[in-house]
Order: sequence, then C-alpha cells, then structure tokens
Amino acid sequence: MDRIPVAVLGATGVVGQRFVQLLADHPTFEITSLTASERKVGQRYADACHWILSPQPPPSAAGMILQKSEPNLNARVIFSALPASIAMELEPQFAQAGYAVCSNSSAYRSAEDMPMIIPEVNADHLALISRQQNERGWSGFIVTSPNCTTTGIVMPLKPLHEAFGLRQIFAVSMQAVSGAGYPGVSSLDIIDNVVTLIPGEEEKIERETRELLGQIEEGRNIMADIIVSAQTNRVPVVDGHTICLSVGFEDKPSIENAIDVLSRFRGPDSMRSLPSAPDQPIIVRHEPDRPQPRWDRDSENGMAVSVGRVRACPLLDLRMVTTVHNTLRGAASGSILNAELLAAEKYVQ
Amino acid sequence: MDRIPVAVLGATGVVGQRFVQLLADHPTFEITSLTASERKVGQRYADACHWILSPQPPPSAAGMILQKSEPNLNARVIFSALPASIAMELEPQFAQAGYAVCSNSSAYRSAEDMPMIIPEVNADHLALISRQQNERGWSGFIVTSPNCTTTGIVMPLKPLHEAFGLRQIFAVSMQAVSGAGYPGVSSLDIIDNVVTLIPGEEEKIERETRELLGQIEEGRNIMADIIVSAQTNRVPVVDGHTICLSVGFEDKPSIENAIDVLSRFRGPDSMRSLPSAPDQPIIVRHEPDRPQPRWDRDSENGMAVSVGRVRACPLLDLRMVTTVHNTLRGAASGSILNAELLAAEKYVQ
Amino acid sequence: MDRIPVAVLGATGVVGQRFVQLLADHPTFEITSLTASERKVGQRYADACHWILSPQPPPSAAGMILQKSEPNLNARVIFSALPASIAMELEPQFAQAGYAVCSNSSAYRSAEDMPMIIPEVNADHLALISRQQNERGWSGFIVTSPNCTTTGIVMPLKPLHEAFGLRQIFAVSMQAVSGAGYPGVSSLDIIDNVVTLIPGEEEKIERETRELLGQIEEGRNIMADIIVSAQTNRVPVVDGHTICLSVGFEDKPSIENAIDVLSRFRGPDSMRSLPSAPDQPIIVRHEPDRPQPRWDRDSENGMAVSVGRVRACPLLDLRMVTTVHNTLRGAASGSILNAELLAAEKYVQ
Amino acid sequence: MDRIPVAVLGATGVVGQRFVQLLADHPTFEITSLTASERKVGQRYADACHWILSPQPPPSAAGMILQKSEPNLNARVIFSALPASIAMELEPQFAQAGYAVCSNSSAYRSAEDMPMIIPEVNADHLALISRQQNERGWSGFIVTSPNCTTTGIVMPLKPLHEAFGLRQIFAVSMQAVSGAGYPGVSSLDIIDNVVTLIPGEEEKIERETRELLGQIEEGRNIMADIIVSAQTNRVPVVDGHTICLSVGFEDKPSIENAIDVLSRFRGPDSMRSLPSAPDQPIIVRHEPDRPQPRWDRDSENGMAVSVGRVRACPLLDLRMVTTVHNTLRGAASGSILNAELLAAEKYVQ
Repeated sequence: MDRIPVAVLGATGVVGQRFVQLLADHPTFEITSLTASERKVGQRYADACHWILSPQPPPSAAGMILQKSEPNLNARVIFSALPASIAMELEPQFAQAGYAVCSNSSAYRSAEDMPMIIPEVNADHLALISRQQNERGWSGFIVTSPNCTTTGIVMPLKPLHEAFGLRQIFAVSMQAVSGAGYPGVSSLDIIDNVVTLIPGEEEKIERETRELLGQIEEGRNIMADIIVSAQTNRVPVVDGHTICLSVGFEDKPSIENAIDVLSRFRGPDSMRSLPSAPDQPIIVRHEPDRPQPRWDRDSENGMAVSVGRVRACPLLDLRMVTTVHNTLRGAASGSILNAELLAAEKYVQ
Repeated sequence: MDRIPVAVLGATGVVGQRFVQLLADHPTFEITSLTASERKVGQRYADACHWILSPQPPPSAAGMILQKSEPNLNARVIFSALPASIAMELEPQFAQAGYAVCSNSSAYRSAEDMPMIIPEVNADHLALISRQQNERGWSGFIVTSPNCTTTGIVMPLKPLHEAFGLRQIFAVSMQAVSGAGYPGVSSLDIIDNVVTLIPGEEEKIERETRELLGQIEEGRNIMADIIVSAQTNRVPVVDGHTICLSVGFEDKPSIENAIDVLSRFRGPDSMRSLPSAPDQPIIVRHEPDRPQPRWDRDSENGMAVSVGRVRACPLLDLRMVTTVHNTLRGAASGSILNAELLAAEKYVQ
Repeated sequence: MDRIPVAVLGATGVVGQRFVQLLADHPTFEITSLTASERKVGQRYADACHWILSPQPPPSAAGMILQKSEPNLNARVIFSALPASIAMELEPQFAQAGYAVCSNSSAYRSAEDMPMIIPEVNADHLALISRQQNERGWSGFIVTSPNCTTTGIVMPLKPLHEAFGLRQIFAVSMQAVSGAGYPGVSSLDIIDNVVTLIPGEEEKIERETRELLGQIEEGRNIMADIIVSAQTNRVPVVDGHTICLSVGFEDKPSIENAIDVLSRFRGPDSMRSLPSAPDQPIIVRHEPDRPQPRWDRDSENGMAVSVGRVRACPLLDLRMVTTVHNTLRGAASGSILNAELLAAEKYVQ
Repeated sequence: MDRIPVAVLGATGVVGQRFVQLLADHPTFEITSLTASERKVGQRYADACHWILSPQPPPSAAGMILQKSEPNLNARVIFSALPASIAMELEPQFAQAGYAVCSNSSAYRSAEDMPMIIPEVNADHLALISRQQNERGWSGFIVTSPNCTTTGIVMPLKPLHEAFGLRQIFAVSMQAVSGAGYPGVSSLDIIDNVVTLIPGEEEKIERETRELLGQIEEGRNIMADIIVSAQTNRVPVVDGHTICLSVGFEDKPSIENAIDVLSRFRGPDSMRSLPSAPDQPIIVRHEPDRPQPRWDRDSENGMAVSVGRVRACPLLDLRMVTTVHNTLRGAASGSILNAELLAAEKYVQ
C-alpha cells in the first residue's frame, strides 16, 4: 500500500524534529514536505536545523528543502508543530483547503468543535469533526493533541475515572526543559534551580483535563465535572515530565483495586493495533521509588505513561506519581497516533 | 562577656560543617569540641573532613582534633548533627549529664516531652523542658529542630494559621541534594532526573506540621487539628528546598489579606533580637516566577523563608510556593537560633 | 548453533548491568550465571540490583539468583566487572580453571603476558595468550580491555599512527559520572561543578595508550615510543567521555589527509563481521561544534568513537575532539567485542 | 571625599548586573547612570532587568531609569558591558568625549594603542594611554579587560614567566555558562552534555595571553614570544571557569620552586591597596583534587585565581589546574579593579 503523504509544519523546532525522526520510517505515513519560518525557507533541512536528537537528522529528511507553511503542500496529513500564535492563523487555512491537520499546538484545543484527542482516552470525540466541517464549511479539519503534562495526568486517570468516578484532582508537575522548545529555558535559569512558573500551563491542565474526560452529547463536549488544581514547575531534566497527583473519587477504591484497574488498561480496541500504539498505555511500577523521568520516559518507545507510588492520601483518596515523555507521547508521537487513528477510521484516505 | 563553650557532634557531615562554619565567628557561642565517628577520632578536623562549603574550613576549626561523641566534652551546649539512629542513643546521655542538647536529628522530634522549636513559631513549647527534666531526672535537656522541609511549610503558615485557622494542607516538595547528607544522593541517580521517593520524609512533614502548630496545655502538646498531605521529591539542586502548597482555612482570606499577613510577620519579640534572627522571617516575593531556590535560598543569610505565587486554588483556598535553605534555616542555623533563644531565656547560662 | 554459556562477575554494578543488558539477546553468548558480592548472594538479580538503565532489567536476567564469584560456574566465558582489587585475586582463579576471562577491570592491564585488546586496534596482541598459558600453566586465560578514556583516545589515533607516525599526545578529558560506578560520584560534588581529579586515571591513560599501540615481538609487547600527557576531569554528564587532543606526528599530515584517514578506517577484516562490531568504528563529525557527549555517545549502538574539530595546533600538529560511550565501547560492549573476537578466532569454543 | 560618578553601559546583561551589584556600595565610585538597549530605555532598572544574582537588584539601583548609551551621561568613568559589535561603535564616542572607558568587551582588546590590563600582571601597559590620546586626539580613553579565560591563565603564569621564562602553553578550558551571557546557552544544549565549541574563544586566549605578557617599548606592546594552544569547552557549571594547563619554560623549575613562586605572588605595590584588590591574587590549593569551580570561584570575593595539582608533565615541564570566577575577576570585578588603578594613578580624577 502506498504511504500517505504528510507534511510537518515548523519542522526545525523541538517537536518538529521529533515528528521528522518518528516519521522517517513510518509504515503509514511518508514525509513529503517540511516547512519552517520565512528566513529558513529554501535551506536544506539539515543545514537550517539545530538538531538536538542524537546524533543527526534521518538521511531521508536531511536533504529536503524547507518550504513555506502554505496550503499548497503535496500532502494529505499536516502535522503542525507551529507556535500557538502562528498555528492560530495557519491551521484553519490548511483545514479549509482539505488537509487533515493534526496539531500539537494549543491554538485550537479549546475550540468547541475541534476534538482534542488521546486515542486511549476519548477516540469518540472524533465525532466533532463532522460538526466542525459542517459549521465551518471545510473539506479538511483540525484535530488537536493535549498539553504534554495533561497527557501525563489524564492517561492514568481515565480508567480510574471510568471505574470510580473522579471528583477532585490535585496535581504538581516537575517538567523537563524540552517542553519549552529550543532555545527555550536558559541554562542560567535552570542549572541548580527550579523555575516555579510556566506561564499559562496551569490553566491549560485544569481546562484540558475536564475536556478530555468530557462526554460528547449532540455534537457538544460536556466537560467532566471534576475540580482540578494544577501547579507547574520546570526542573533540570532534559526529557520527561513528572507529576505528583492526589485524587478524590465518587466511589473510593482500595489501593489494590486502583492498581488493578491501572494495570489492566489497554485502551479501546479501535486503537490497539495502530502502529504507534503501546502494548501497555499505562505501566504500573511497583518499586517504591518509581517512576522517575530518566528511567521511565522511554518506556514503550516513549508512548506509555508510567505510574507508581499509589498510596492513600490523608486529604483526598489516593496519591500517585506519574511520568510521561513530553515530546513523544506528550507531543509528536501523540499527534502521530492521532493521525494513525484518523487513517484507521477513514477520516484520512 | 565570655562566650558559651559549645560542641558539635557529627561535625564532618553536611550539617556538621554548617554548624562549624556558622559558629566560627559567633557572638554568643564558641566551639570547644568537635566530634566524629570512631575512625576519624584523633584526626585534625580539616584532614578528616571532605569540606563541601567553599572554599575551606574556618582556620579556628581546621586544626581541632576530633573527639569521641561522649558526654565528657568541655561545653555547655551540644549541637547534634548525628544520624538519627546514633542520636537516639547518645543525645540522652548528654542531656542526662547536664548538657543543653540542640539536636538537628529526627530521633526525638516526636517525643512528647522534647520540644521541637522554631523560635518564630512556637517558642512557648520550651515549657516542655521542665517536664522533660522532671520526668526523666535529667539536669540537661534535649531541644529538637524540625525537618528542613517542614520548616519551609510551617514558617509561612504560622501567621496564616493564627489569622485564618488552617484546616488542610497539600504540600509537594522539590528538595535539594544537600538534604540527604554526604555522599548522599548519587550523581547517577539525580543528573537529568527527579527521584520521587525520600524515605520517611512525607510522614515526618505530616506529623511535625501538626506538632509545631500545636498548643501546650498542662505540659502536653495538643497537636493542631489540621489535615496534611505531603509528597516529596529530590531534584538536581544543591541547596534550597521548594514547596508547592495548597491550603484551606476556617476563615478563607482574600489573597491580599493573606499577603498582608505574611508580609507583616516578624515573629515574637522574644526572638527578634537574637543574633541569628532574620529581620524578616518571611519574605514575600511579588515577581510572578519567584521564589526559586537558587535566587532565594540565601535571603537573610539563609534564615528567611521566601513565599510567592500566592493565588487562589480551585480545590482549597490558596496556593503558594515557598523556598527554604535546607541546611541553614532548615538545619544548622535553625538549631543555633534555638540555642540563642535558650541562652536568652536563661535555659543555658 | 548453541550459544556459548557466559557468566558476569560483579553483575549488579554499573558495568555489570551493561553486560546483562547487552547479553540478554546476544547471538553468540547466553548468560547462565550472575555473581555479586557476598551479601547479595542468593537474592534475585532484580531485587539485589539498583538498576540504573531504563527502565528495568531484562526479564531473562531479572529472576536469576546471584551466585558467588567462584570458578565453578556453568560458563565458558567470564565477563568480569569486578573492582580491581577483587579482580586481582579472582580472575586468575578462573583462568587457571579453564575459563576465558574477558576483564573490564584494570587489575591485569599492565601484566606483560595479558593482552589488552581493542579489536580494531591490536587484535594481533591475542598472540600473548599462548605465552600466558604456557608460562602460568593455565588452561584458560585473561584478556583485558583498556580504560574507557584510553579507548576514546587510541581508537581514532590508531589509523593516524599507522599513516603518519604518532610522536606526542596531549589529552584532557571531561568524563561522565557513570565511569565512577554506582553510587560513585556524590551529587554534592558534581552538580554545578567540575571534579579535577580522578585518582590513577592519568597514569592509566599514559601507559595504556603506549601499550595498545605497541608491537608484539617474540611474545613481548614493545610499547610504542610516544610521549603521552593526560589530564582528567569529571563533569556533570551521565554517559560519554569527551577528550580534547593535540597530537604530533613524524610525518605531519594535512588536515584533509588526517580526516580522510579517519573517515576511511574500518578496522581489520577479522573483526568487521563480529556481531557487536560497528560499521564505522570512527565517525568524523563535520559540524563545527561536534562531537558532544549527549548527541554522539550512542552512535553505532555506542560502539563508535566520534571525532571532530580536526584543526591545526600551534604547538603540535593537529588538534581534535573525541567522544566515546564510556560504559559501552569503553567498557561492557568493548569486552563483549573482545569475546566475540576470541570466539571467531577459536580461542573460545 | 566625594565618590567618582560612574555609568554602566549594558547594565541589564550578566556582566552589567555584576557591575551594578559590585558598585552599589563602592568606596570610590558611585553609579549615576545605567544604560540599556533602545527598547528598555525609560524603564526602571528592576523592571527591565531579568536579575540573575540572588536575590534582587540593590535598592539604590532598582529604581534608576535606564538611559540611552550616549556620551552625555553624568559620569567620569564608563563601565562597558556592551556586546562587542555595539562596543566597537560606542566606546570611542565616549573616549572622544572625555570619559575614561573601562571596557569588558572584546572590541578593542587587540587595538595596539588600547591597553588591556590586569593590574597584577601589566599595570605598566597603562603607558599606552598617552599614545592613544595623542594619536586619536581624544580627551578620554579606553582601557580593556582580557577575556575571562585568559585571566585564569595569565594571572598564575605571570610570576612563573618572570621567574622561569614561559615558552609554551597548552590550555584546555571547561567554562561556565554565565560566560555566554543571558539567555546564552540553552539548557537543552548543556544539561548532561559538554559543548565543545565556543566560537572565537580559542583565538582570543592565544592572542591575549601573548599581549598581556608583552613588553611596552617606545609606546608599542612587543607581544611575548610564547606559543599558546587553547581548546575551549562549555560545561554545566553556573559560574567559574576551570583550565587544565601544561607549560614549558626556558629554565625548567622544580615543582616546589614553581609552587613557591605562585604562593608568594602579591602583585605590584601600586595595586595592592586598591579597594577590590585581593590579598592573594593567586591561591595555591594543596589538596589533591583542587581547585574546583564550585568550591574556589568565590575565593577573595571572586578576585583570586586558584591553582592546584601542580605536577610534572611528560611533554612540557609542568601541569596545573586553575579556576577563575568568570563574571567577577574575569569580567566586572576585573574592570572595576582597573578603574581603581586608573583613579589611584590619577588617570581619572
């Protein structure tokens, strides 16, 4: 079968590079176009890109000439790693022109008719696409991925929510510097330090968690009725976000039941055979000191969220620690998994 | 006036070194003895000690010969930087022999008759000393200091508790490696990583917070009726613990009122003129991204707790971030401040 | 074909873990025994081992019961990751008992009759084995691997030596903390710091370089007549040593010729088809700022030494920078490649 | 005595902040003007500045309004922390207008008539000022400071040069990130890594070393006849450059003699009573593993260069390790010491 031609918008950034790395050898997709900002257009990808993944760009992409981010690319799927402000303007142009846009930006995550998808969590939200196309008159569409930290929270909480009914979430994150892009966080700010503010991040987590766990009813997402309090920090870690969670439920589970539900989770059948789907979306660590970002971020090719230290909470019901690879599951791989789902469900052909 | 002769037990460790550094030039105290474990006894301090504070031991201490930790030292105050298991055995021997023991270990923090003191918070708990001496038949006594992270939580919460009545505390810490002693945390465990377990730490914080905020009634500490949930982590920071707090009150204050109470706090008159007392025990940072450990740990010679990001919490009432220098205010300087208080209050003469 | 049974001595350390990881799925070798120090004997490998490679021990090894390091193991090849002092005593016992010992320790690197091997560099030194067996009356033998930093120096210098005749080497290293074992370097010593002493390291590099480039004549290694000056440092890097070299030659090459010789190097035919052999033992980086340890350490599964910044030196002839993965090429993988060579050359059957 | 009014050009950068910090309480100088780039002009210093020195700007500077870098400032001495390209244009305007410009930029370090000064090393080079003023018709003048790494090399080599006659220098540096300014080095480039290129740095060191050790003859600097080979690297250290040196002499000294010469060095009388002058410009460390940047950078308020590991070199004569605080002695404090010398020598009144 011929592979589906795809383009990566913003291919030289941290997430763009991950897209290029992951799509270099993909069974379903084939990169045909890479785009970058104006001043890099016309350069070879390998020359224009400060490649930060070891050791060098894939040969198939290295020689590609960077193009403008305009809706005339030879592709059917668009992976967008654009900054939010630019994505806001350009992504609709691609959707209107018939492309399937899988966006990693935050630009349209809160748009009511644009599904924000984690295939294991809310594949059914794809139903919003038809409303999106009808109301906007687009032949293509935009599907978004959630914030990387949100992913590390919602993936493990999804099966617990289904089983026991989430009511409250308290989350404190310790996030890797790759989440801020390149050059992103100055070394002078983070060596021997913790940066206690990530602008806008807490609000995103609080909103997106409720959206991802929401129910689609009559073409609308009824946000989940959960109170979320998030505090976010940047720590001197290259890749991998760590989150301390405390959660309250309608039906308080025992620790054993909670671990059992987490361990059994495999996601819906619809997504389990997708090329990038992990065998185990949630890996429960039983060691007393795990997960930790350096040891666990690459589990299942960076597609699994690791969970551990599941224990009682004096205030709510359960506490636990999770880690997620922020530029793989939490960004590029997550968007690619979304595109694989779209292809499997015939949204892209 | 002659300075009071003091000894440092466990003088070669991370906290022991801080004691030596801080007491080298102290107006009230004068180091007369340093002790260490058996195999170092008889060596010069500078030779036996892997000094990790820049650049070298104070000349007055460098040539002192290390002694055994036995209650025959020429001193009236004993600063104990011993590991908990050894402190458990030795500190009572010193107290019985008439020494005033200011302990930085966790050995006796939960003993009912041994006051755990932060002068700004609960100087009145010194009243337990007479009970301790009576019941145990000791001529000396033991006073303890709380865990370093507890200090970073309770200092800022004390005035808020007095003003608004604390009910619930969520705390997630990101702790410096110096808190684990030397050699402590292996570099292989912490570079590019977060260690998500600090054994025993969460339990200490949850218990000590309630103890410090407790009321002495009839020679007993009635623990404060507050629910505390603590999660603790180690991050690649040399000095300075950072804590994300969310707190609930009986009388929910406005953000402005809370900041106002924090900013005005100076501690009781009894301690404000002590040599190591900070002018401002709590420093409220108004920048959106502060406090941070590298910038704020040394405020007021490491004696102030910095607080910032005071804002509403969707779950409880207020969220905030605090930092504390874990080996100064949270350890050695804290114990020295306690000893200064004991001297001022004539417990030591 | 049946795989050759092998044992790993000192299997729970940093290098021991690498052996276990790399041998879990090896085409030629099969782990049958793992050993550890007395107090761990009898425990499951996964329980006794603080596993520091992500995310967990290979399932085939996890359940193995740790044995004593005694020459009664069911194995033909012994991979030794023992500390030097213990290796000094135990390795000869295994060699005497008929085992082929591939040692990663420094214990016998300078023994005249024990070949220290890098297959690309001096496979012909295996000729020393027969002398070793004859003179010592052993049915087995010991083959050693050089120090990790030496490997990063000698690999790229070998083809230059052959082509242009090395006379002087000036080397300054910046070494990863994994080279010091676990727990090894304390985080308090290395965060925000450089440790400017690695005991014994400089002498090892200076001697081993001359030994590896020596000529075997009549059963003796005539050390190469090269002056080597090494200075070594520890830096806050997890894996991957970086070395700044300046070298002088008998026949000074142009920069282009030197790069050409480095780029063409493939090692002798005898080793090129070994399972762990890299396609390119030396990778020349042409970017102005490469190699760097985080980007280049994993090249060719950590088996290639990367070289870059080849340029003139005002004092000697050429300067360059090299990186080597210290626990793969510079330790466990290097020893495994040696064992593969021994199997291919029928020293092990 | 009234303090001399001074201005800091480029006051919001890493070095600019150090100038502001150090001059806040200076006995000889008083800050009257701070300048910054166009878009910050008119803002309060504390608002426009991302202050990276703990914990906050000095109150006396915090409220100052940033001005343009134009030669109409109310000051007699100008401390320039401008980028080289801007310094190139602006510094002569100030010199022409009569200001004494103490520059920390590299713009005019190689100008033949502009002295590059380390008071302990070459105070006599100030003689170039009169030539500069005569030839250019300026009423003011420019005096420069050397590169931070050069300072860490030349300070300790100066007395050795005088005593034994330097012929060759090999230098490999491991430099702190603060040397690259703010935001400077991206955390994604330096955590768990070494950056093996610092553009232009090696050339600067090789040239400046010879210039600083040169002799002024008839108004010209006769560069020292020393061969210098420098290799430079960036490591994950906040402050403090470390340099591995190997040096050859005309008269090879014994190790003891070399250490003796280093230990006795105090600099010329002319500079020893300057306010910022260290008691000991060179501190010889006798521990086997010192100096190290975190322990030694702050010695003598960051004004001393620490030297250790003095030992023989197989290739040249002696090897040693030095550390220097790159933003204090190697930048802001160095320029201030120069200005103090200019005031003492009546070049500024």
